[in-house]
Amino acid sequence: MKEKKLTIGLIGLGTVGYSVFDLLEERKNELKKQHGLNFYLKRIAEKDPKKKKNLKSFRGILCKNVEEILGDSEIDTVIELIGGIDPAHKIIREALKRKKNVVTGNKHLLGLHGKSLFREANKNNRYLGFRAAMTGCHQVLNHLEYGGTIKSILGVFNGTTNYILSQMEENDMSFSDALKQAQKLGYAERDPSLDIDGLDSAYKLILIVRLAFVYNLKPDSFYIEGIRNIEIQDVQFAKELGYAIKLLGIVKRENNALEVRVHPCLVPKNKSLALLKGVENGIEIIDEARGNGGLIAEGAGGNPAASAVLADLIDIANDSGIYLPEPIEKLSIKKMPLIKCKYYIRFNAINKPGVLAKIASVLAKYNINIRKVIQKGEEIGAVMPIIIITDEAVEREAQKAVKIIDKLPIVKSKTKLIRIEEKVF
Amino acid sequence: MKEKKLTIGLIGLGTVGYSVFDLLEERKNELKKQHGLNFYLKRIAEKDPKKKKNLKSFRGILCKNVEEILGDSEIDTVIELIGGIDPAHKIIREALKRKKNVVTGNKHLLGLHGKSLFREANKNNRYLGFRAAMTGCHQVLNHLEYGGTIKSILGVFNGTTNYILSQMEENDMSFSDALKQAQKLGYAERDPSLDIDGLDSAYKLILIVRLAFVYNLKPDSFYIEGIRNIEIQDVQFAKELGYAIKLLGIVKRENNALEVRVHPCLVPKNKSLALLKGVENGIEIIDEARGNGGLIAEGAGGNPAASAVLADLIDIANDSGIYLPEPIEKLSIKKMPLIKCKYYIRFNAINKPGVLAKIASVLAKYNINIRKVIQKGEEIGAVMPIIIITDEAVEREAQKAVKIIDKLPIVKSKTKLIRIEEKVF
Repeated sequence: MKEKKLTIGLIGLGTVGYSVFDLLEERKNELKKQHGLNFYLKRIAEKDPKKKKNLKSFRGILCKNVEEILGDSEIDTVIELIGGIDPAHKIIREALKRKKNVVTGNKHLLGLHGKSLFREANKNNRYLGFRAAMTGCHQVLNHLEYGGTIKSILGVFNGTTNYILSQMEENDMSFSDALKQAQKLGYAERDPSLDIDGLDSAYKLILIVRLAFVYNLKPDSFYIEGIRNIEIQDVQFAKELGYAIKLLGIVKRENNALEVRVHPCLVPKNKSLALLKGVENGIEIIDEARGNGGLIAEGAGGNPAASAVLADLIDIANDSGIYLPEPIEKLSIKKMPLIKCKYYIRFNAINKPGVLAKIASVLAKYNINIRKVIQKGEEIGAVMPIIIITDEAVEREAQKAVKIIDKLPIVKSKTKLIRIEEKVF
Repeated sequence: MKEKKLTIGLIGLGTVGYSVFDLLEERKNELKKQHGLNFYLKRIAEKDPKKKKNLKSFRGILCKNVEEILGDSEIDTVIELIGGIDPAHKIIREALKRKKNVVTGNKHLLGLHGKSLFREANKNNRYLGFRAAMTGCHQVLNHLEYGGTIKSILGVFNGTTNYILSQMEENDMSFSDALKQAQKLGYAERDPSLDIDGLDSAYKLILIVRLAFVYNLKPDSFYIEGIRNIEIQDVQFAKELGYAIKLLGIVKRENNALEVRVHPCLVPKNKSLALLKGVENGIEIIDEARGNGGLIAEGAGGNPAASAVLADLIDIANDSGIYLPEPIEKLSIKKMPLIKCKYYIRFNAINKPGVLAKIASVLAKYNINIRKVIQKGEEIGAVMPIIIITDEAVEREAQKAVKIIDKLPIVKSKTKLIRIEEKVF
C-alpha cells in the first residue's frame, strides 16, 4: 500500500470548519493505517479573532491572511468554508489557477459560477470537490456522475424547510412560529430567505443536473418557489387527504428536454419522501436501465458537511474525484407553463348553493378534471374553504382557470394552488 | 481527457450476463465521449448452447472454453457471472493470479471464500469488484469503505423475501402461496432456500461487515434465521400492532465487539424500511460522526445487477476500485444469547382465567417486562393466541422463558418469538 499524502489549507473556521478539523484529528490514524491516506492540515486561515476560540489545539497553524495558504507551494489542496460569493469566488479561482485542488461546500457560489469554476478546474487538471454542497445526498454523487440513463431525480434537498414543514404538520404550528423555532435551534439563519425561498434547494439541483445530465443550468432559467406562503390550514387539509407537503427539487428528462423546478408539493404520506422528519434530506433517482433508488440522510449541521469534505479529500488523494465534463448534447429546458401535474387547489368562497358548480365549470373549460372535493363548514353565507384535488392538467391552464375564478364575486380571497407529485416511491 | 481502456472477458450468459452485454452496447458511445472510458468486450464464454439465443449480436466473440479468456493476455478484466461455488472459485482465483481484475456478483462464493480471494487480489495488485453482489446498496459502498466511525448498519438485503413478506402483508397470502407466486414471477429460484433461509442476506452482510468494519466474518459465526416459519397470522397481528415483518441483516458495533445477525424483525410501520415494497432493498447506516443515512433501491433482476457490474468497470478503469485492507483491529463477535432486544411473542393457550397470569409470572422470573398484550377470541376453553410485546430483554432469558412456558399444560403448540427492531429511522 503506497501512502498518499495531501497537504491541506483550510479557509474559514465556522461550524463546519471546526468539524472538519475535529474529524481530521479523530480519523487521522485509522485513515493512515487502514487506507494509507495521510492528510496533513498545514494551515488554517480565519480573519475573525472571535472564532479562534480553541487556539490551543491549532498549535500555531492559524493565520489571518488567505495568501499564506494560496501562496504556499507545499499546500496542494484548499478547503474553502467561508461561504458567500466574495471573496470565496476569487479564492477558489485563484487556488485552481495555482494548481491546487479545491474542496468547497459553497452551493450558492457554485450555483451562480459553477460553470466557469468547473472549467477552470478541468483546465488546470485539478479537482473541485463539492460534496459538502450536497450533504444529504453526497453518497450517491458517483452514481449520478455516470447517470447517463437517468430519467428523473427528485428530492427534499433542504433541511431547514423540511424542519419547518414537519413542525407545521406534526405540531400544528404556523409557518412563522416554526421558522422562529428553527432559528432558535440554529437550523435557520437570521435571514432565512436562501432556505425558505427555495434558492438553497435550487443551487443543489443545479449541481445535480450538472452531474447527472451534463447540463449547465442557470438559476434564472427554471421555476423556483419557496414555502413562505404555505399556510397551516393547507398542511392540515393535505394531511386529511393523505398527503404531506414537502419542498421538492425536481428534474425530469424527456428526449432532449429537461423539466426542472423547485416548489412545495403534496406527496402521498406513505411514501419515503413524505416521511422525512426534521432536517432530513432525501433523493430519489428513477433510472429504468440501472434500477431505481433513493437515499435518505441527515441534512444539516457541521458533521454531515464535514464528512462530505472528508469524502472529497479521500477521493482527491485517490485521484478519483468527480470530473465534470463539458456538455456535448444539446438539451433544452421545458417552459413552466407547459408542464403537467396534478393540483391541490383551495378556494375561499361564500358557502351557498351553486358555488361549486360555478368553480367546476371554469375548471372544465380549461380541461381540468376534478378528482376529489372537500367543502368545509356548513354556515350558509359564510366564507368557507373548498379544496379540490385535480387529475393531471397543464400548468398554464390551471393558472388561467384560477385567475378567472379569483375574479368571481363568490370568491373572497386569493386561491391557493399547490402541485402534487405522486410519482415518488 | 486521456482515454482509459479495459479489455473484457465475460464468463456466463445468464440473465445478468445478457443485461451486461446490452448495457455495455447501449452506453458505449456516451461513456467514451463523455467520460473517456473505452470498454472493449473481447470474448464471452458460455457452455450451454441453449443460452446463446442471440448469436447474431455476439458477432463471433463467443467461446466455449473459459481458458480462451483466462489465457488471453490482452484481456485485463474478467466478469464472472456463472454463479455457484465451483468452478467460479477456481476461475476467479486463476484470473487474479494471472493479473486480471475480476468483477463478480457471486455473494455466495465471496461469503465463503472472500477472505482469501480479496487477499489474492491485493497480492496481485488487482481489483476484485463485487458491487453486483450488493445490488440494492452498491451505491453506498464507497461510503462504507471509509466507514471508520459507523456504529451500526441494518437493512433488507434480499428482494425475494421482501416480496414474499410484502405479499403476505398486503394480500393476506400464506407463506407458501406467496413463495409460489415469487417463483412464477422469477423472483425466487426453484430451490429457494438460499433466499428464504436468510443465507443470501447473510452473505451480503459478510461483505458489508468486511467493508465497513474491516473484519472477516465467517458464515457460521453468527445467527441466521430465515422467513420459512413466518405465519400469516403473525404478519396480521404485527400489522394490528403497528409493525411490518421484514427480514433484516443487522450489525452493531460496541467498542471492540460486533453484534451480527440475520432474522425476521418487526419494524414500526411508519419507518422507511417497513415501507419497502416488492423486491426493494434498503440499508440504513447509523454514523453519528458523519451523519445517519439510508438507501432504498430495487433489489432483483438483471438490470440493477448489470448496472452494478458497470459501476465496477468504471471504478477499475479509473483505478479507484474498492480496496479491502487486511484487518488491523481485533474485533470479537458477541454471542447471540447475550444480545438484547424487544420481542413479539405469540402463545397458543387455552382461553381460561389465570392463563395470562401464569405466562406473565414466568416472563417476570426471567426479567421480561410486558409492554402490550392482545388476547384473541372469547370462547372459553378453546385454544386462542395471546400476543405479547415485551420491553428490551436478554435473548437467552427470552428463549428460556418461552421453553418453560411451552411445557405448561395450558399451552397447546409451540410459541412463536420474533424480535423487534425499533432503532430504524
